[in-house]
Formats: sequence, structure tokens, C-alpha cells
Amino acid sequence: MSISFEVFAKESRRLLESQMTEYAKAVLCPAVLRDAMLYSLEAGGKRIRPLLLFATLHAFQKKREIGLAAASALEMIHTYSLIHDDLPCMDDDELRRGKPTNHKVFGEAMAVLAGDGLLTYAFQVLAENRHPEVTEAMNLRLVLELAKAAGPEGMVAGQVADMEAEGKQLTLSQLEYIHQNKTGRLLEFSVLAGAVLAGASLAQTEELMEFARNLGLAFQIRDDILDVEGNEEEIGKRVGSDVANEKSTYTTLFSMEEAKQILHETTERAKNAVRSLQLQDEYLLQICELVAKRTH
Amino acid sequence: MSISFEVFAKESRRLLESQMTEYAKAVLCPAVLRDAMLYSLEAGGKRIRPLLLFATLHAFQKKREIGLAAASALEMIHTYSLIHDDLPCMDDDELRRGKPTNHKVFGEAMAVLAGDGLLTYAFQVLAENRHPEVTEAMNLRLVLELAKAAGPEGMVAGQVADMEAEGKQLTLSQLEYIHQNKTGRLLEFSVLAGAVLAGASLAQTEELMEFARNLGLAFQIRDDILDVEGNEEEIGKRVGSDVANEKSTYTTLFSMEEAKQILHETTERAKNAVRSLQLQDEYLLQICELVAKRTH
Repeated sequence: MSISFEVFAKESRRLLESQMTEYAKAVLCPAVLRDAMLYSLEAGGKRIRPLLLFATLHAFQKKREIGLAAASALEMIHTYSLIHDDLPCMDDDELRRGKPTNHKVFGEAMAVLAGDGLLTYAFQVLAENRHPEVTEAMNLRLVLELAKAAGPEGMVAGQVADMEAEGKQLTLSQLEYIHQNKTGRLLEFSVLAGAVLAGASLAQTEELMEFARNLGLAFQIRDDILDVEGNEEEIGKRVGSDVANEKSTYTTLFSMEEAKQILHETTERAKNAVRSLQLQDEYLLQICELVAKRTH
Repeated sequence: MSISFEVFAKESRRLLESQMTEYAKAVLCPAVLRDAMLYSLEAGGKRIRPLLLFATLHAFQKKREIGLAAASALEMIHTYSLIHDDLPCMDDDELRRGKPTNHKVFGEAMAVLAGDGLLTYAFQVLAENRHPEVTEAMNLRLVLELAKAAGPEGMVAGQVADMEAEGKQLTLSQLEYIHQNKTGRLLEFSVLAGAVLAGASLAQTEELMEFARNLGLAFQIRDDILDVEGNEEEIGKRVGSDVANEKSTYTTLFSMEEAKQILHETTERAKNAVRSLQLQDEYLLQICELVAKRTH
């Protein structure tokens, strides 16, 4: 009998956050750099990526502890991408999760460096993981997959494509390319890291990637819907910014009703992929629900 | 009988540059991102870090090929740091090596992303190196050491300390902290990577690190001297910018004559460390000369 998803999620967040704080405090560097990195690491958020990693480990009846370094690295990469995205030369956002953005507090130069620092530190944390159940081969595989997911063949490519697309009418496949790379690849890595650390077979890993791809897509469609229908206070940022920036989204390419139907079908495909594996999949299925129905 | 240092250096640069171009062209990403990364990778420069790595391999009678991935990764990290350093919110430089800086050509947002892309891609290149003489353990070690050297405990820390120091009178130890981290750590990694890939013993590696530390210091003292005495056209950037920015340097903390004396002593310490190992050290010694006497 497993603990409830709510307890699992809450414990996971606590475990992750205390580990990340420990990592950040251990960095030997000027205090202001540590403060700037910690400010954004501790700014909260859903911690959906670490949760996905832990839920994947749970599916294989593995403890969260073996994934703590990878989950921290993942959240560092996600955090760096938010800091750089918010910069004046990028999205120029003043609020993130209801708090002033990093550059508003520490200045632009420090925000660039805090982002660079978190990005690089993520690889340090992965490479120096000494958990007894984690092999060197696993660590190297995680470094490679994280770099691919986050770098110029993944998240950075998505970011560039997104920027290039501003003010243009996109086709569905162009929109999917952006989503797949900008947010999808890191969500996929969350599941892949769990699979690698749990010693999943190739066939299991492929099915889990099918789950992760559809979950990532669902995540982004829900994001597009929230940008229209969301509550500004709950989201912690301005609503309607996609429309203001003339971005193509699921709600501009489709009607709201169609977008919700696509979201439903995508979520079902994700669930079916994971169910077919007959693992201890309760938490993975509940994350699907969470993503499809989230209000922020 | 080895080839002359000049031929070795020229061949090393050609080998490195063709490999880096190959890596960059292989990236599956929007064309503008690839162009922005390639623009700065191909902007030239002394390629002193890759040369150091190859010269260290040569000291152990190892071929350059086993260090090609690490040398490329190193130069990608160095290049990303230049792109971000040049940003308007950082040093706000318009010229680098005599060419317009990345953000002048591609815009600020793309320059941030090209830097992020190169930084992340460096780890991908290291992690997917499949040279038959390079083991997984070596690759993982290189990832860890590069992250430490480049990240918040290394280069990024030095960058922050340098920024914090602007307009302040520094002590020698504060100045050394900045140099050690901002430029020293990556130069040290160049030698360390060669030692790891050549299978150097712990004692050999320690002596090589003594060499690298002093070489890095010499490099920076020479930089400070060039900022006063250098030729603008040869350096490819404005001379006197340290004075203009009220930076503490070896030439403000010491007289020019003293700075040159310290440079001489530091270079000798570097040479003595490497000589004590009785390796095939000719190219390492010639790099010391190059660093101490360079005009750009």
C-alpha cells in the first residue's frame, strides 16, 4: 500500500528543496552569486520535473534517494532557463511565481551569471553523484541526455524557434516543434532519468518516452489555455501575454473547445502508454491528471 | 624528433577548428542559432587552451586525437564566456578579436542563447566522446572537472568577483582570487584534461597543476600589462579599458617594472614544475614563452 499522491508529492518537494538548498549552500563562491542562485531555486514552483522523476522511480519500486542528484540538476536547469527567459532582452518579465524576477532583484549582469552558474552546476551535481546504487555509466548517460535535452538540440533550440516565431502565423507542426523542444525535452528527461536510474529495459524506456512526449504536449496545451482562461494571482504572472505578443498557440490555431479536446486525447495517450507497462504507475497517472487540470 | 612548436601549434589549431566546425554543423537546431554559435567559435583567437591540452598529451607521447573532444568542449566554454561577457549588461563590448561582438550581429537575446547553447553543448560533446582510448570513467571525470572549473566554483565565481570589484581598490589576494577563477581555472582544466586522458599518475598530475596555476597567473599578468602597453590593432580590442573601468590590476597594484618581474618569476616557476617531471615537455615550455611574451 503506497502513501497517497498528495503526501508523495509534498514529501518529494520537501526532499528536493532541502537537497537543492544544501547543494547551493555548499558552493564556494562570492555570497551574492550564491544568493542569486538560491533566490530563484527557492522561488517555489510546482517542481513537476523532479516529481515526474520520483514517480518514475516509484513505478519501478525504487526509492527517491537514488534520483535526488538528478532531480536537483533538472530543477537547476529549469530554474536557469527561467532566469534567462525573464531577462529584459528576452521576455522582459518583472514577476515570476508572484515574486520579482531575478534581474529585478540582483541586476541583469548577476542574473546572466546566476543562470550560467546554475546551468553549469547541474552537470557538476550529476557527475559527482556517489549514491551506491548509481553507477558511473548511469551518471555519464544522465549527463549526455540532460545536455541533449537542455542544449542547442533541445530546450535552447525551442527557445530560439519560439523567439523567431513571434508575430508570425505558425503551422501546427511549427508550434509542435517549439513545444516539443522548449518544454517537452526537459519533461522527457525527467522520465528518462528515472528509467535510467531504475535500470529499465529498452522496451520499457521507449513506452515511458511515449508517455513523456504526450505528457509534455498536454502540459503545453494546458499552458496555452491558462494564458487565456487562467487566474493572474494563481499563475503568478500576467494573463494574455501570448495574445499581446502575437504568439501562435493551441488557442489561436484551434478554438478553445478544440484545444480542450486535443488536451484530453493527449492525456489519454500518455496514460495508455504508461498503463501498458503494468508497473506501479499510480503516481505517474496522477501527474497526468495534475497536468491536464492544473490552474497554475 | 618532434615537429617544431610552430608547426605543432598550427596543426593543432587546424585540427581543433575543423573538429569544432564539424560539431557545430552537426547540431540539429534552427539555422540562426547554429550561425550565432559558429560565428563566435570561428572568430579565431589564440586557441591557447586546446594547445595546452594537446601539448600535455604530447608530453606523455599521446596523440592529439584522443583530446579532440575535450579541446572542443573547452573552447566552446571559453567562447560562451566571451559572448556573455561582451553583453551590454556586462562589459558592453562592441569588438572582439577585431570583429563585431556576437550580440552586435545577432542581437542580445540570440547572444544569450548562443552562449547557453555552447555551454550546454560542451558537456554533450564530452559525454558522447567514443574514442577507443577514452574510457567512460575518463569522460565522467572530465565532465566533473570542467563543470567545477567553469561553474559557480570557478569561472563564474571569478566573473562575479571581478564585477563586484569594479571601482574598488583590491588587495593582492583579492586580485589573485579573481584571476585564479576567471581565467586560471579553465587554463588549469586544459592541462588536467590532458593528464587525465594520458593516464598521468597522481604525483604527475599535481606537478602539472603547479605548472598550470603559474601559467594561468602569468597569462593574466601579461593581460594586465598588455592593457597598458599593447597595440590596439594586434589585441583587437580597446587598450586602457581597465584604467577606464577603474579596475585593480597588476599594473595598478605594482609598478610596470615590478609587474614584469613578477611575470618573469611566475613563468620560471611554471617551467620548473614541468621540467621536474622529465617528460617530453618541449611544447609545454614553449607555451610558457608564448604566454609571457605574447603581444595579443
